[in-house]
Amino acid sequence: MNHRLTVVGLGPGQHDWCTPEVTALFDQATDLVGYAPYLARVPAGCTARRHASDNRVEAERAEHALDLAAGGGNVVVVSSGDPGVFAMASAVLEQLDEHPERWCDVHVSVCPGITAAQALASRVGAPLGHDFCVISLSDVLKPWSVIERRLDAAAGADFVIALYNPRSRHRPHQFTDAIAVVCRHRDASTPVVVGRNVGRDEEAVTITDLERLDHTTIDMSTIVIIGSSTTRVLDRPTSCQVYTPRSYAEPRLLPSVAQCREAGASPARYSPL
Amino acid sequence: MNHRLTVVGLGPGQHDWCTPEVTALFDQATDLVGYAPYLARVPAGCTARRHASDNRVEAERAEHALDLAAGGGNVVVVSSGDPGVFAMASAVLEQLDEHPERWCDVHVSVCPGITAAQALASRVGAPLGHDFCVISLSDVLKPWSVIERRLDAAAGADFVIALYNPRSRHRPHQFTDAIAVVCRHRDASTPVVVGRNVGRDEEAVTITDLERLDHTTIDMSTIVIIGSSTTRVLDRPTSCQVYTPRSYAEPRLLPSVAQCREAGASPARYSPL
Repeated sequence: MNHRLTVVGLGPGQHDWCTPEVTALFDQATDLVGYAPYLARVPAGCTARRHASDNRVEAERAEHALDLAAGGGNVVVVSSGDPGVFAMASAVLEQLDEHPERWCDVHVSVCPGITAAQALASRVGAPLGHDFCVISLSDVLKPWSVIERRLDAAAGADFVIALYNPRSRHRPHQFTDAIAVVCRHRDASTPVVVGRNVGRDEEAVTITDLERLDHTTIDMSTIVIIGSSTTRVLDRPTSCQVYTPRSYAEPRLLPSVAQCREAGASPARYSPL
Repeated sequence: MNHRLTVVGLGPGQHDWCTPEVTALFDQATDLVGYAPYLARVPAGCTARRHASDNRVEAERAEHALDLAAGGGNVVVVSSGDPGVFAMASAVLEQLDEHPERWCDVHVSVCPGITAAQALASRVGAPLGHDFCVISLSDVLKPWSVIERRLDAAAGADFVIALYNPRSRHRPHQFTDAIAVVCRHRDASTPVVVGRNVGRDEEAVTITDLERLDHTTIDMSTIVIIGSSTTRVLDRPTSCQVYTPRSYAEPRLLPSVAQCREAGASPARYSPL
């Protein structure tokens, strides 16, 4: 009897981004639980029972996986990307938290994976080469006011910003609102990288800037990386690349919190450009 | 003649975190360039010439690698973790940017890897399960005022915060200063996860909180993850785990930017706790 549940990430799309740690687990699993398109990416040689579920039923999926493990299984919950970043690891731990007496004997662990922002960043160079934030724009599970507040803080402090779940059919205007918040602090020429289906056959990556960014091309299959004030585009003969330098040589552009307070101003109102 | 340079990440320590994409590149490489301890982690079966360098000579290492590629090599620059996060990918692109006429025929690409914060997060559950920031506390390449400003913004907007290069012998007081900035906004009981040498034999992971965090145990081999106001510690019979829920159910705790401005206050002065 195993009583074991492991939450794993396949990485985004490309099969050779899945770590050997995760691949080895498939050989020992009795049950695989996950969103159907992710389970379809598990190698056919894996003979574990497959329990496919629909999108947006993370709590039910986690509960089902925990029940299978409590029944003695060696259960693998399959996420795309990194299961610890806007994915199933939190959903499983939420269930344990809500039901402290249930599933006491199930050992739960997590294996990391390449997350979509890293994959997209690698395609164009190193836009995440310096301090960065990762924000989900979905307001299904948090109020828009929190999202707006975080965008304002991240842009005001000149972080590179990676946006997950940037624009859904149900809230197309919110992406435009989010970009407007960023534009309070960031120049129109700030580099923006848009990646759709990164790591899959239909992958499309675009390098643009805040001014020219076509909002209508953004949807839930997209990841958006917005540069900081120091992020640069390199137009080379062989390719166009984007990177954020390791050094931050312009202290005068970003006054310290203390200086802002001395001046009686909110740090967020200082623009780095 | 290859004229090819690929910057890769081995992941942090554990060999089965290195992606198959990266492993396959070692078979084709003519030259490996990297910090000596990272090159030592490349499988012995890889027959490429190894060019080991010291720590803190990233610019020189990048220049050397580009020269080798310009000479016709198929060069792999070896980083730990993700080469796109505080690592060699930006160092290589900085060289290209500084010398636009040199190395014109070298094709540069990047392969992503598991970064240390993801590895540490996976060891304890899912502390990065919701919006998060990644900040290097090293002021070798950026002024401390920028770091302080970013910490204040990230803590004020209730991001989970992952700290890289948290505390060196040359600036032991700065980690304490950084935690003081976070404590302006975050309760003393906020969960903190400390990971030393994650993925290596000598790995040590500690779950603590802002109040009990022992600053003297932090050094450059350490990664520190500071929870948001919603991050929770689960004390289970089988293990102690930390996660940040996917939902953010307390909008009243984080007023919107508009509400802050209406109140004539800086959003950063509102504390979520």
